[in-house]
Amino acid sequence: MRIAVDAAGGDHGPAVIVTGALEGARRFGVALLLTGDEPVIRQALAEHDVTGLDILVVDAPEVIDGHEQPAQAVRRKPRSAIAVALDAVRDGRAAAFVSAGNSGAVMAGALLKLGRIRGVDRPAIAGYLPAIGGMTLVLDMGAVTDPRPSHLVQFAQMGSIYIERAFGVADPKVGLLSNGEEPSKGNQLVQETFPLLTAAPGIHFYGNVEGNDITRGVVDVVVTDGFTGNVALKVAEGAASLINATVRRRLTSSWRRTMLAALLRPAFEEVRKELDYAEQGGAPLLGINGVVIISHGRSNERAIASAIGVAKRSVEGEVPGTIARLMATLEPAPQPSAAAG
Amino acid sequence: MRIAVDAAGGDHGPAVIVTGALEGARRFGVALLLTGDEPVIRQALAEHDVTGLDILVVDAPEVIDGHEQPAQAVRRKPRSAIAVALDAVRDGRAAAFVSAGNSGAVMAGALLKLGRIRGVDRPAIAGYLPAIGGMTLVLDMGAVTDPRPSHLVQFAQMGSIYIERAFGVADPKVGLLSNGEEPSKGNQLVQETFPLLTAAPGIHFYGNVEGNDITRGVVDVVVTDGFTGNVALKVAEGAASLINATVRRRLTSSWRRTMLAALLRPAFEEVRKELDYAEQGGAPLLGINGVVIISHGRSNERAIASAIGVAKRSVEGEVPGTIARLMATLEPAPQPSAAAG
Repeated sequence: MRIAVDAAGGDHGPAVIVTGALEGARRFGVALLLTGDEPVIRQALAEHDVTGLDILVVDAPEVIDGHEQPAQAVRRKPRSAIAVALDAVRDGRAAAFVSAGNSGAVMAGALLKLGRIRGVDRPAIAGYLPAIGGMTLVLDMGAVTDPRPSHLVQFAQMGSIYIERAFGVADPKVGLLSNGEEPSKGNQLVQETFPLLTAAPGIHFYGNVEGNDITRGVVDVVVTDGFTGNVALKVAEGAASLINATVRRRLTSSWRRTMLAALLRPAFEEVRKELDYAEQGGAPLLGINGVVIISHGRSNERAIASAIGVAKRSVEGEVPGTIARLMATLEPAPQPSAAAG
Repeated sequence: MRIAVDAAGGDHGPAVIVTGALEGARRFGVALLLTGDEPVIRQALAEHDVTGLDILVVDAPEVIDGHEQPAQAVRRKPRSAIAVALDAVRDGRAAAFVSAGNSGAVMAGALLKLGRIRGVDRPAIAGYLPAIGGMTLVLDMGAVTDPRPSHLVQFAQMGSIYIERAFGVADPKVGLLSNGEEPSKGNQLVQETFPLLTAAPGIHFYGNVEGNDITRGVVDVVVTDGFTGNVALKVAEGAASLINATVRRRLTSSWRRTMLAALLRPAFEEVRKELDYAEQGGAPLLGINGVVIISHGRSNERAIASAIGVAKRSVEGEVPGTIARLMATLEPAPQPSAAAG
């Protein structure tokens, strides 16, 4: 299996992406197709021992900058790293695509080059948040800011298929994010969605969950609109940063504390690893005809390596195909057409 | 100044509320009016030395349970702790009301007994979240799940007045919670609100802020719909609980770590105090003709004491009167009426 990686994306530059991709290739036993500015990629590769790895580099010198309208940018720059990698997935030269670049451009490009799965109204980004005893999948994380209730039902179905097929979670429980547990709680969207989820095929609906239930691990999948999902993810990140900064300040406020804290460094390192998004890095764009993994712009090497693992699991679990089969069974029977025959 | 306190509300029972109220009365130099089941309150008071404190107890034996429709419950139970306390505020026997009881019933009761400030469309709950270097006020926290853009403008105005008058923050900066900083980001509500905030009188609009900016302390006031505000608050609480549990587990995973961590206990206690919501406890219901402070159901003694301080600051800062004056200046000039003269 070959995974295409956008070596031009991410806040930390190509060297970090290439290092992470190589680490992922070794760890998960996959081949790579790296896209971006070829001389820069070659230079980054020269820093590593790539013995035994199968690596293709495809030159993609055009750069999509953050201020461009995403769909236009992908169309106008066919030799950008995102466009070239998605072409490779479409043509079967790569099985999946991992990018830490402009997520708007990745979404627009995926829609343009790979297309939506038939029956899916809106593709969604599904991200993991750390929870007690594991992780909770939350979708949408920002692709659809004003979904309709029927979109949230599809998010629930796609999220359930993803964690069942890619992570082996049997009969995943789905919660609807709300401001209270009772079915009567929620904004208008949530109140209209609740009865639809109760009746929806292909999912195990648990009921409403609250913001603190995400990290409590009450359910396997939490569905919400992309606006709230994005806010929730960033509030959790912000709370973690604040706590981290406060602990660090208080534990270094005297010489004695600094000494004691240094002796506990391995324990704090374990905490960081256990809760770090990078350990799971990579949020699939579900509802696309292909495996596309969006990584955080701030992704480090470990996050990119991890995203390659997520891509491999999604391919092996046939996530897009399974979503397509469910959607096909839910579609209304085709109407006889006058032109048929 | 006398503060009415709902001694029947809160998850931990009347003894905790009474203890916190007494602590608050001493710390902030205020008199109390305690409402609830009188024998229970008297029994709780008997556990304390109340020398020098001015305490009235008003019997309010009717109990509003969590499953009642809030507005109906307040009407049907005029001798509930919430109704009796709000009567005292309306009649001038108390300057403010603090409750950790059913927040829906407190809101409904406040609207019924004290009424909305003229010109305010929807009262909002304003809560503090911890941030680097202080706190960030977030509103709405759950009173209005589907506000209109004009409601968010009033939230910005009321929140600015509150932290300026009650906490002495000069020229407070207001951010609009969104899924990106650019003015083009946001769901439909946010996109429609942005230009209104840019033009709104009485506030200093900073622009869009993201979820992680709340704890970064980028602005003084963050406005959002009550659904998202509630989710944000609970996600932050959930993230803090998860981190706390993980740190605790890793720091007690061996005998040696447990010993070292015990020596650092004062530092961890400082972190807990610095970040604990209880240190600020008490979210004002803004837009009401009177000072009403809603405390978390889980409030402990310290949170109730702190809420009394928030009530006192709100009264001294004339928060409701200042909001009323701003709204009066913004109201369209009265139209001549045929019946006038």
